[in-house]
Parts: sequence; C-alpha cells; structure tokens
Amino acid sequence: MTLPRQLHLNLNFLNAGTFASAWRWPSSKPSDYADVQYYVRTAQLAERGTFDSIFLADFPALSDHPQHRPFQSLEPTITLATIAAATQHIGLIATASSTYNEPYNIARRFSSLDHVSGGRAGLNIVTTADPAAARNFGLSQRLAHSVRYERAAEFAEVVTGLWDSWEDDALVGDKQTAQFLDPARIHAVDYHGQHFSVAGPLNVPRSPQGRPIVVQAGGSDDGMDFAARYADAVFSVAHSLPDAVAYAKDLRQRLSAYRRAEDAILIFPGLVTVIGSTEAEAKRREEQLWELVPIEYGLRRLAGILQVDPAVLKLDQPLPRNLKLPVDGMQTFFKGALTLAERGGLTVRQLIRAQGGGTGHRIIVGTPDSVADSIETWFRSGAVAGFNIMPDVIASGLEAFVDHVVPLLRQRGIFRNAYDGTTLRDHFGLARPVWTHPVSTCPAAKMRAASH
Amino acid sequence: MTLPRQLHLNLNFLNAGTFASAWRWPSSKPSDYADVQYYVRTAQLAERGTFDSIFLADFPALSDHPQHRPFQSLEPTITLATIAAATQHIGLIATASSTYNEPYNIARRFSSLDHVSGGRAGLNIVTTADPAAARNFGLSQRLAHSVRYERAAEFAEVVTGLWDSWEDDALVGDKQTAQFLDPARIHAVDYHGQHFSVAGPLNVPRSPQGRPIVVQAGGSDDGMDFAARYADAVFSVAHSLPDAVAYAKDLRQRLSAYRRAEDAILIFPGLVTVIGSTEAEAKRREEQLWELVPIEYGLRRLAGILQVDPAVLKLDQPLPRNLKLPVDGMQTFFKGALTLAERGGLTVRQLIRAQGGGTGHRIIVGTPDSVADSIETWFRSGAVAGFNIMPDVIASGLEAFVDHVVPLLRQRGIFRNAYDGTTLRDHFGLARPVWTHPVSTCPAAKMRAASH
Repeated sequence: MTLPRQLHLNLNFLNAGTFASAWRWPSSKPSDYADVQYYVRTAQLAERGTFDSIFLADFPALSDHPQHRPFQSLEPTITLATIAAATQHIGLIATASSTYNEPYNIARRFSSLDHVSGGRAGLNIVTTADPAAARNFGLSQRLAHSVRYERAAEFAEVVTGLWDSWEDDALVGDKQTAQFLDPARIHAVDYHGQHFSVAGPLNVPRSPQGRPIVVQAGGSDDGMDFAARYADAVFSVAHSLPDAVAYAKDLRQRLSAYRRAEDAILIFPGLVTVIGSTEAEAKRREEQLWELVPIEYGLRRLAGILQVDPAVLKLDQPLPRNLKLPVDGMQTFFKGALTLAERGGLTVRQLIRAQGGGTGHRIIVGTPDSVADSIETWFRSGAVAGFNIMPDVIASGLEAFVDHVVPLLRQRGIFRNAYDGTTLRDHFGLARPVWTHPVSTCPAAKMRAASH
Repeated sequence: MTLPRQLHLNLNFLNAGTFASAWRWPSSKPSDYADVQYYVRTAQLAERGTFDSIFLADFPALSDHPQHRPFQSLEPTITLATIAAATQHIGLIATASSTYNEPYNIARRFSSLDHVSGGRAGLNIVTTADPAAARNFGLSQRLAHSVRYERAAEFAEVVTGLWDSWEDDALVGDKQTAQFLDPARIHAVDYHGQHFSVAGPLNVPRSPQGRPIVVQAGGSDDGMDFAARYADAVFSVAHSLPDAVAYAKDLRQRLSAYRRAEDAILIFPGLVTVIGSTEAEAKRREEQLWELVPIEYGLRRLAGILQVDPAVLKLDQPLPRNLKLPVDGMQTFFKGALTLAERGGLTVRQLIRAQGGGTGHRIIVGTPDSVADSIETWFRSGAVAGFNIMPDVIASGLEAFVDHVVPLLRQRGIFRNAYDGTTLRDHFGLARPVWTHPVSTCPAAKMRAASH
C-alpha cells in the first residue's frame, strides 16, 4: 500500500525565536543563548510534534548587532551531537560554509554526525557572503558571488565524493585473517579543481544514510543551479502561493539538466508563525512582539538586505526607487522584500513588519485552524513538500504549533501520527543512495601498495 | 586543609586499544570502529575509575595500513559531545591539527564543547606531519618542521585570544533596556601574522573553564618550547625514570622564559599496560597479543618512526647504524626508539616489542600491584603529574586497570576516591584563568559603531 503523499516539517531553530524581540518575551531566558539543554528541550518538543528535522543556521562571526538579539552561538554540529544523544528520530541539519571550511573536515564531521545519530544528519551548504566572516578567515574582502558558487560546487563534489569513498562492506573485521578493512573496497577521490585538491579516501566508513542529506538555501540563479545539481532539499522564500509555484517550476526545470526526477528535491519555504487562540489574540501577540523590537534594529536589518545606507530609508515612506540587485549579496531576500513592498504599496515600517519578524520570510498570524488551512492549501498545490517552520518565539510559539497545529494536520490526514522510519532520509521519503563506483577514482594508491 | 598532591590519570583512548592486534582480541568487536556507543561505554568505565580525562588522538586521513588495524575514525569532537551527554565529570580532550584547520573554527568548536560539557574540554594542538594528510588539504608536500611550529604558535595565539575575547559578564540579557550583549565587554582580536589574520571576536561567550585546557605532545625542541609557552599539560614519552626526570627539568627550565611557574604544566608520560593476575599471566597475555600482530605491520610502523625503507630493517639484527634524526618528522618517537635499542642492545624484533605495542611508549607488563608500584614510584619522584594510560586492549585492559589498579592507588592515598570538582581544570588542580584585557585589542570596531 502506498501512503498518500505526506507533509514535511522542518523547524528553523533561531535561538530564542524568529522575532528579534523573542529573547525579551516573558517565557524566554537570555541564558538560553549558549545553553545546550535549551536546544535539547526544544528538539525534544519538535520530536513530540513528529517534525522531520530541526535546522541550525550558522554564521562564523559575531553578528553586527549582537547587543540587540541573540544569534547562533554554540557550534551547530556540537549542539546536534548533544541533541542526537537525547532524541530518537528527529533529523539534524546544520549549516556549514563552503567559503571558510576545508571539504575533508566537513565531510568527516557530518559523516560522523550521521553515524552517532543513526542516520539523521543533514548538511546545509552556504556560500557565506559577509565581510565580518571574511575577516575571521584572513580574507580582507568577501569573495564575489560567482566565485563563491564555483567554490561551493567543488566543495559539494569533494564532500559527496568522500562520503562515497567507502563501499558499504569495506569494514571486513575478519579476526582470523587479520584483515580489518578491505583496501579494494575503499576508493581515493583524487579531486583536483580550482579551489580544492583532495586525495581521499575519507577515514570514516560509509554512514547510515549512505550520504547525509544535502540542503541548499539560496534563491539566486547560481544558488538554484547548485540546488538542482546537489541538493536533496531546499529552504526557499515564498511570500505567496504563485511565488511558490513559480519557484517550484523553475527548480524542477533545472533538475532535468542533471537528469534528476522532478520530485528529487523537497522544497521547504520559510513560514513564520504567530499563533493565538483567536485571530485577535494572535494579532495582539504580533503587535506586542513588534513593540519589543527596537525600530533601529528592524531598519538596519532591512538596509542590510537591500544593501543600502539605513539613512536612505524613511520609516513612513515607500522604499526609494531604483534599488539595485546586489551582485555579491543575498539575492533571495532582496527580491522578496522588493516584491512585497511593490505589491502591497508598503511603507518602510510596514515592509519591516511584513517580513516575518524582520527575517524576509512569509509570516502567518492567526489561529491554529487558519495556520493549518494555509499549510494544507499550499501543500495540496504540489508546489511545496512542506514548510520550514519559524516560530515567533521558540519557547511558547513552537509549543503552540506542536500542541494545536500538528493535531489538525494529522486529523486532515496530511501529516504523520508517528515516525515510520529511523533516518532523515526515511522521514523525507528519499531512498538511501546505492553505492556505485565513483567516476574517475580508483583504489587508493597508497593502500594498494600497502596490501602487497 | 591542603590535600596531599594527587596523581592524575588520562586515558589515551586508541580505538580497540594500544596493541595493533587489540581488535582481534576475543572481547573486541570490529564494529566498535565507528560505533559511538562503544566510546560512551568506555568513557563511563574510565569515569567509574575517576580518571581525570579521556583523550582522543586524531589524524585527518586514512592511515597507511588500515587493513591491519583501526585508527580514529569518527571526528573526535562529535564523539566527545556525545560522551559529554552520557557522563558527568570526566575531562574530554581531543586533537586538532594547526596545519589543517582555521583557528576561528577550532576556537569555536572547543569553546562550544566546553559549554555543552559544563567545563570539561581540552584541545591537544598537533602540527600534523604526514603526506597522506597534506594531500587531503590541497598541499602536495607537508610543511617543514619549523614552519609547522611557527604556524602552531600563531594558531595558539589566535585560539586563546578568541577564547578571551568575551569578558565573563558580557551577556547582559536585560529585557527592560533591550540590551542583550554589552559590546564594551566583547573585544576584537585583530591578529595579523604570517599564517593567520583573524579579526574576532568569537561568537561564543567565555566558556565555563575560561579557556579549555591546552595540551601539547611533541618532544622536539620546537615542541617543548611550544608547550612551555601555551600548554596546561603535555603528553610525553619516557622509557625510564631518569628520562622522565630529565624531560621535566628541561621543560621546567623553559617555563621560566615565559614567566610561568614550575608546576604550571602537568606532565603525563605514556604508559602502556598489560595486566594479569600473576606476572606469568601478564606475560602470556602480552605474548598472545604479539602473536596476533602481523610482523610486517610492526616492521612498517618502526620504519615509519625511523623514516627509513622497511627493507633496511632486519628482524633479527640490530638497527642499522647512522640513522639520521628526521627534520620534518616525529622526533620524539625517533629518539625514544634509538635510546631503547642502544641501551638494551636490541634486535629490530625486540625493539618492536619493547615499544609498548608498537607505539613507541613505555610498556609495563605485570600484576596490578607491580603496575601500582611503578606508578607510585614515578609519581613520588615529582617528575610526572600522572600518566597517559594506554591499555593493551580497551575492553578488557581498561577494566583490569579500573577494577584492580585504581583501588590500590586509592589505598596508597595518591589518587582520588571521588571527583571533588566538576571541570577538567578542577581535576587538574588548575585555576580558572581570570579574564584580563588582552594586550593590543580594543572593543570591536563594528560593534562600537553599531552601539551609537
């Protein structure tokens, strides 16, 4: 029996929550910032709601405005390894930057996370584009957009090549013949590119998922091509259902260029939720959250997305005309903000508030029923696999989602009542990749020599 | 009341055990290779023995001879984060290479491990010297010994600078004033060296230990200077008590150059243990372990230490004359092997066996009483803080140590009956470093600008 197509939910776990003011909410504790037990409790709550996965975004620098809000602090794979030990099913996705990491280190760390979690790891490859990060890695300037994506493609080639460097049965462990590993079933990578040269093989056996899940989150042309080529899932931005449909169409067309099936990639648009037991209560909650965000913070963040001086933005006027798409910046959020402002005829202040807690993602403010309705409508359109859920405030907003929205989605028959697999691939409905001999590799030369 | 000076014990946790044949021992399971639960159980056993810490060596490549024995596979900080969640007290030390990592990434990961473990993290900085590793990081050749140590010194400067970039009370979290962090208490690093340029600050608050423990393990001149300058503990090699005394004297003299106290560094020589309930039983066990090591493996490993072609080593003859100290290699083990061979007039076969399971470390084969005697003698000499314990086989050898040697050390009043602190610094008897304003840093420029 084939189950009806099921909705997928990922928790986009932004420290205290999506709103910049989430940490000031009564139920929030500032000390949660670097307290891994807070992360563990939240993951357990999401697991109670049978979410497919949690996702920790990341950025290798202290953000520009740390005095106003918390960002990711603890290194995410350390956090996820801790969470893995305290959960059973939920998938564990973290960001790593292809700009500031060596692919061997990342391949190994995420393979290890896949091993220790029993097959629940996912890697969101980002091409970090921020001068603050560049300065922590000996670069005086950030790399150009196209160079970052060129490097990211090499990075993905090497990482996936290393994950495939061991056949599933390479660990022989025959005490009688004293053969621990079989060198004939472990393969060099021998990658030589513009940005990386990596011999391989990895020093970790093939992991429970074969390969950890690969996620991508950029909406630029380069980003979507990268996703079409390497990603199992994308975290996208869509402010309306037509936007989501157009994005899915575009991405699926690109998939064919890489001979991948239309449903090879799960699409998760971001969805900021503000939930109340009545529409009025939800609106009041949103209003209270906004009152706690210093307006200068919202302004600076929007200016960052648009890559303009904050001084050119007037709170009660529309956006300035003739804003230019930043060639080296975050194109996804730029386009999203512009579309939103133009369609709604919004002032700067309205635009800040329309951008889901200032994040640039779609926001829904309402009762559990209205949230479930919207999720169901989008899901049934076929344009999305599910949503990247961004609760306004983690502590209370995720609880409301798990306790009041998830039961409705289950009643409607579109979301699981319990996990029916153990790996993230199981939850996503993706098969474990069958090991095939990588093109242009051969048994590692050194190992072959050693076996003589 | 001041307690009498106490012995310190670290478990040098080499996968199946120290002997290359440990994985073939009846109690060993080859699948433990990448099974984190094996690591968790072993750490819990060491914690039952109130060991100060466990240590995971590491090497970012598949070893030369993987078909014969397991090496570190899972990335060690992922393993230690998993262990942290299943233990309460034991310290957690891992190796990271200054040759193949960015200091920002390592500072952050080990600070995070310190946070999630409640102050139990230690970083063993190594200057990896192997062509197999170099080839995984785009380097066709390994770096020269002196360049590696120059880079390591810069690495240590940056890492410790980043650990000190936050004052202890920088996280304000004042919901009323909307101040989350205080930029005036977070400081840039602004390091500009030959190998690294790092702006900082770190994006993680100062960790429970202030700074994670820093360990060093090289016995070369450069290595000992590095230790004298940066390390809280050293993993050393000493085949006799006079060797240990000479090493301690040398290291302590170097400490004064950096205005550090004589007892600022804990010295842990490696000690391979083969324990039996009688001397004869212990000797039989050693013999059986050697019978399970393919002799070519031992020969190749010795040839690697001496940096010669295995063909020049004749099993039943002495070492060739005129072996040259490798300038770019592992000088500690080279010197140890030569001294051992010359003093004992050993053949190559005897030398292989004399080198603690082939590791190059001192080996003791005997009853729990004779092991405890030797440990006590060395400890009372004042030349060592304790030992880097290397059980022949983890599963059974560590159990023998914990159940039969540890009780003797406790009876003799030189080892703790229970942990009397919670952090690794507590166990090592080292104070938490008081935060002082780093020289040549200032409040991060960007943050200062943002606070206007």
